[in-house]
Amino acid sequence: MAYVTIRDVAQRAGISVSTVSRALNGRGRISPETKKSVERAVEELNYIPDSRAQAMRSSKTKTVGLLVPDIRNGYFADLAYAIQDTLFKAGYCTFIGTSSESVSLQDSFITSILSQHIDGAIIVPQGEYSDALHLLNTRKLPVVFVDRTAQGVEGVPLVDSDPMPGIREALNDIKDHGFAKVGYVSGPILDSPSLQGREYAFRDLAARIFGEEHVFVESTSFNQASCASVLKRMRQSGVDALIFGYSPDAIRAISLLTYAGEQVGKDVSIVSFDDLEIFRLISPQISVISQQVQEIGRRGAELFLDMVDGKRQSQSQRVETIYIPRASVGQAR
Amino acid sequence: MAYVTIRDVAQRAGISVSTVSRALNGRGRISPETKKSVERAVEELNYIPDSRAQAMRSSKTKTVGLLVPDIRNGYFADLAYAIQDTLFKAGYCTFIGTSSESVSLQDSFITSILSQHIDGAIIVPQGEYSDALHLLNTRKLPVVFVDRTAQGVEGVPLVDSDPMPGIREALNDIKDHGFAKVGYVSGPILDSPSLQGREYAFRDLAARIFGEEHVFVESTSFNQASCASVLKRMRQSGVDALIFGYSPDAIRAISLLTYAGEQVGKDVSIVSFDDLEIFRLISPQISVISQQVQEIGRRGAELFLDMVDGKRQSQSQRVETIYIPRASVGQAR
Repeated sequence: MAYVTIRDVAQRAGISVSTVSRALNGRGRISPETKKSVERAVEELNYIPDSRAQAMRSSKTKTVGLLVPDIRNGYFADLAYAIQDTLFKAGYCTFIGTSSESVSLQDSFITSILSQHIDGAIIVPQGEYSDALHLLNTRKLPVVFVDRTAQGVEGVPLVDSDPMPGIREALNDIKDHGFAKVGYVSGPILDSPSLQGREYAFRDLAARIFGEEHVFVESTSFNQASCASVLKRMRQSGVDALIFGYSPDAIRAISLLTYAGEQVGKDVSIVSFDDLEIFRLISPQISVISQQVQEIGRRGAELFLDMVDGKRQSQSQRVETIYIPRASVGQAR
Repeated sequence: MAYVTIRDVAQRAGISVSTVSRALNGRGRISPETKKSVERAVEELNYIPDSRAQAMRSSKTKTVGLLVPDIRNGYFADLAYAIQDTLFKAGYCTFIGTSSESVSLQDSFITSILSQHIDGAIIVPQGEYSDALHLLNTRKLPVVFVDRTAQGVEGVPLVDSDPMPGIREALNDIKDHGFAKVGYVSGPILDSPSLQGREYAFRDLAARIFGEEHVFVESTSFNQASCASVLKRMRQSGVDALIFGYSPDAIRAISLLTYAGEQVGKDVSIVSFDDLEIFRLISPQISVISQQVQEIGRRGAELFLDMVDGKRQSQSQRVETIYIPRASVGQAR
């Protein structure tokens, strides 16, 4: 038997289960000798009270499920770190799962988490309203969405970023560098309302700043090939300044351009969403639209903790994006 | 009440809890009508059988705890992805926790995981033998260490990499480029037997290839400042070729050198452990000693699954390191 139960403790101490239970919970009258022998048995057997039983007493297991699409993506790694750090300081343990941008993996994690009796979940959902999200919703457990929402889900508060301020600044910087046309690579937008929101914000702002006929927008799927063909079409349209809504695409594009012998900041100017470490390390450094991921993570975790404490509900929050200009936007030729 | 219990199902179906239990477990005689009404109630209430109860029946919860030091470190993100991917294909859900290289965070995660009744754990341990590691060990749950072991722990199989082949190739490459001296930055080695093993391997091989008086070794702590002072002392000793045992140090050093106007591959030659994406994206690309992290993750997960199935125990495995030469090692001046 891998798990030590209260029965094992009772047997070792030579007393009844109910007496052990009373000793552990500090309820009823227990002699000091009995208490001591229970403590000794607990120590000898390394007994950990079942969290389920604890949960039934306190309604809290002090565990939170956190679901992110892909921890190999630096943005989500930073987000998970910020959330976990805030929750740990509040005494919570975080179980991280990843969905690999797949609804079935997401649902498998949520179902597993639900059967473990956690206090709630913080989730970066896949775009569609799935069975497991429905389950989570009907359980009335505290749930917070971060980064993006799921279509058709109501009543779950969302902490995300407002793409407008950062995109506006980036477009103005590109215009100030003499570019007449601007392109936007919006990423795999189908399942992500956040990526869709960024694209809408870009279309709206770019049309006003550059004029609709000088604005080019294309989406990609999750691979290098789709990124390469988008890049090719953009260049053929005479677009030398690009904003990437999805940072893995920007990383792919930089790699493709370098391989083709083109210089970022000279031949092609680039701005990417997300202030990843890699964008500060490569030369030239890449101008970014930062979502302030630490802030999103911290606020998401705090909103969750407030919901657990019954303080407030459904107060979605937006963090402003910030543009950080660097050397990857050069003068237009 | 956030959680639907078997009692709620019984109430909704209008029958006794024991009848519901028998219907759900397929035991005893149940009329088709009763079975149907139980199924209807289960569906209407979105009842998920308690994993604890399921575990008591099947001894399996199909969940695994995975503890890594820091998912913001690309090596551990890749490792966690490979482990989770292998386990998911075998029908297991992975709960990832991070220790931030802290023993107390590690112990908090292990204690939390233990009280949730998981099938076992895959762990990148902190160097010392902690209370929670002891607990995990005495529970006789399947546990596998990956990447490094913990001092004083016996009987837990380890999947890690053999540093010798990769370091030997890297040293020969550096020598072939005309360098007479070589430096090794071993990272924060105190709590990591793996980092210590790499340093020993380096000292041994470098003394043989370069001669002991031409070999320089320094460790760092987890910050930019210690990396900067090590770099400075190495250069003052006339060392222009460096191998980094800990990739975050290499990233810090590249950033410091670039900032100081020094060219990697010309002024300073660099080799780092771990074939991270960033080392392929920056210019010049960085020569690496790859631990074949996907292979370590896959083998660690498979060893764990074998232990859960009772197939074998304690068969530690080593994956060979591979040297991948790139442009960051240039000709000595």
